[in-house]
Amino acid sequence: MLTDSSTAAARAADRAHVFHSWSAQGHIDPMPVAGGSGSTFWDYEGNHYLDFSSQFVNLNIGHGHPRVVEAICRQARKLCTVAPHFANDQRSEAAWLIAQHAPGDLDKVFFTNGGTESNEHAVRMARLVTGRPKILTGYRSYHGSTHTAMHLTGDPRRWPSDTGTAGAVHFFGPYPYRSAFHAESEAQECERALEHLEQVITLEGPQTVAAVLLEPVVGTNGLLVPPAGYLRGVREICDRYGILLIADEVMTGFGRTGRWFAVDHWDVVPDLITFAKGVNSGYVPLGGVILSERVAARFHDTPYPGGLTYSGHPLACAAAVATMHAMRDEGIVEHAAWLGEHVIGPGLRKIGEAHPSVGDVRGLGVFWALELVRDRRTREMLVPFAATGAQAAPMAELAADCRRRGLWPFTHFNRLHVLPPCNVSAEDARRGLEIIDEALDVADRYAAE
Amino acid sequence: MLTDSSTAAARAADRAHVFHSWSAQGHIDPMPVAGGSGSTFWDYEGNHYLDFSSQFVNLNIGHGHPRVVEAICRQARKLCTVAPHFANDQRSEAAWLIAQHAPGDLDKVFFTNGGTESNEHAVRMARLVTGRPKILTGYRSYHGSTHTAMHLTGDPRRWPSDTGTAGAVHFFGPYPYRSAFHAESEAQECERALEHLEQVITLEGPQTVAAVLLEPVVGTNGLLVPPAGYLRGVREICDRYGILLIADEVMTGFGRTGRWFAVDHWDVVPDLITFAKGVNSGYVPLGGVILSERVAARFHDTPYPGGLTYSGHPLACAAAVATMHAMRDEGIVEHAAWLGEHVIGPGLRKIGEAHPSVGDVRGLGVFWALELVRDRRTREMLVPFAATGAQAAPMAELAADCRRRGLWPFTHFNRLHVLPPCNVSAEDARRGLEIIDEALDVADRYAAE
Repeated sequence: MLTDSSTAAARAADRAHVFHSWSAQGHIDPMPVAGGSGSTFWDYEGNHYLDFSSQFVNLNIGHGHPRVVEAICRQARKLCTVAPHFANDQRSEAAWLIAQHAPGDLDKVFFTNGGTESNEHAVRMARLVTGRPKILTGYRSYHGSTHTAMHLTGDPRRWPSDTGTAGAVHFFGPYPYRSAFHAESEAQECERALEHLEQVITLEGPQTVAAVLLEPVVGTNGLLVPPAGYLRGVREICDRYGILLIADEVMTGFGRTGRWFAVDHWDVVPDLITFAKGVNSGYVPLGGVILSERVAARFHDTPYPGGLTYSGHPLACAAAVATMHAMRDEGIVEHAAWLGEHVIGPGLRKIGEAHPSVGDVRGLGVFWALELVRDRRTREMLVPFAATGAQAAPMAELAADCRRRGLWPFTHFNRLHVLPPCNVSAEDARRGLEIIDEALDVADRYAAE
Repeated sequence: MLTDSSTAAARAADRAHVFHSWSAQGHIDPMPVAGGSGSTFWDYEGNHYLDFSSQFVNLNIGHGHPRVVEAICRQARKLCTVAPHFANDQRSEAAWLIAQHAPGDLDKVFFTNGGTESNEHAVRMARLVTGRPKILTGYRSYHGSTHTAMHLTGDPRRWPSDTGTAGAVHFFGPYPYRSAFHAESEAQECERALEHLEQVITLEGPQTVAAVLLEPVVGTNGLLVPPAGYLRGVREICDRYGILLIADEVMTGFGRTGRWFAVDHWDVVPDLITFAKGVNSGYVPLGGVILSERVAARFHDTPYPGGLTYSGHPLACAAAVATMHAMRDEGIVEHAAWLGEHVIGPGLRKIGEAHPSVGDVRGLGVFWALELVRDRRTREMLVPFAATGAQAAPMAELAADCRRRGLWPFTHFNRLHVLPPCNVSAEDARRGLEIIDEALDVADRYAAE
């Protein structure tokens, strides 16, 4: 038994027996995490880190929230698991609460274990409802890591296993800072991005397209907040062609953008919402699909051909119930919105002005990015798209400097994302911004004045 | 809030907001489960059921095992979740323990949230190791419910969403009671099933086949224990053609067949094992892939292109560590083997002799099936393959009678499976067999004497 819970013991067993996600196994040295509380976690040597990545953008209420921990222990003593064909009070209440927070007539919840499965099932539902094969998704997107979810993904993580057989068609979404449409304003970007989407649908054949699947605010692939009219425009195009709209709110849902769901910013009602992460901050693996009345009706008399042993897992649902109650009672969603408007947004903009390596600042709530460049005029990226190894060195140096200063950052390509828990204190948020301000000197060394 | 934890409240919220697996939503009335202990669970009205389905064949150590519950609470207070790129002592120890129990050089563990994801990732690994596209799986099989896992599945659950695009090719495995090869003995069935598999490989083109994926003992689709030489023969054929062997031990792993892994019965070492369910009895969602040295080596210098937020989830891994310690300290695997040899096997054979509706009795450990027929001579199935509605009535009546008598059964097509927890007491096992003995009178009414 590994009785010695030291760094060395955890690290040795990890390297001997744990196969890690997305990694060349011979070239990693994962840091053992000993514990966490709120927005902070620590290793076995007493080094503390302010978590500006919320682990994997899932820890919306921080580590060790007492109400959620208590709910898990209470439910563990009562009933950890039941088969999906039974009913269970925690599952019922979690579904009821999610339906309360979901927009429009999205009123039924199919629970899964995480975001990947949620997207797989949402896509199957859309195909069965419409009888059409294709799913349109953004080039700048991540939708999961099983075969179909990976193909729906637009980013380079798709490349190593892409067989082109999943019925995914990728389009360009709005990205004003690097417009694919040569637009010169947000309004023009919006208009042209919608025109592009409709063109793709026209040329693919509307009668072959089951759904448009998108992250309302693109997460890992750019933190791209859409122009004001974009999502409403997508909704209209979908309605025009009988295409379903699936919002992947795995990263954006449950407070991350300062609303319960990101689509709420623009009052858009999708046909399906997929979620995971924030629903219970990942305390117990949980994800799901929220179905509109129309989609649910398709499976009223005909069985839905999908399922899983842990669908609506009581322990996971108990954690979700406690999380949603805590978020409501403690005003955590409103706090995230306030932080974005009054602390993180203004703070990052000020930092952006001071550092020549910062090309763009964008975000909402506790969901922000600094896009880093070598030259603000040409907008040349600080490191190239999909860079690894030596090419990615400037970003690796920046991340290392953040960690040295006690902040755990989230970086992707040429971006530093700012993703603290939704209930991070204003004081901790400001402290994190100060660290980023200092660390950006590293990036500035690569940038033209 | 659903403060009223009555049957009515849980049921009403369930029907209003929970979308259930594999179901026509307008035609189900899921029974609310209030709690469970050991091999028994109960509803809100005080009805107790002896669980002969182990929920969904996952509850190998029964409900509410105190060591596992305690481990979950202890870890919940310490650290529920960390991102997959960190190391964690519970994850390390779970991987180390799994590697100890796994056969041969299967020494590295990639953790997922369940069996479906495990098969998706194992298949990706096999394709990347071999550079070949096709996966051979049995017609009588279940491998999960995401797009690719569903296509790998052989049973009718595949039909509603089958697009034929997942690179799955299905073959016939051994099934002596209903031989696809007109065999007249177990030895002949084995020989001909191997010949058939090699023919399929030859005609598909060995250089196009990445892996043979199979359940060592087919679970839901028949409880098919392979003839003695079959798995070893499959291993030899795979080796001859450079094809990987993936054992789907999601249902059979961690004690179900009276061994830690079912392949241990025949001393066969696959290249990859997928697991879930029994690893922690589903107390917290967890699954994974165990990789041989050869497969792991492929990703030593090249990143493995897959991952998930909850890979190696500390709470799930803590439950797995406690489960494996409990199984070892309490001799649960050995107990399951003993039950199969001395209680369940002999008991079911005696029942089989007494009831004209029982055509075949087969199994290992706590993993058994009665195959029910209308006529022992012709072997006509009691209900047809993939029967639903009125056609399936005899089996529905049998299941209802079991429930009325206080036993929760697992039925599939024309079979009654016997799947109590691995640590069910001999007394409870005998009591369950008595109930089945009584209930089978219902099936006998449809059978020729």
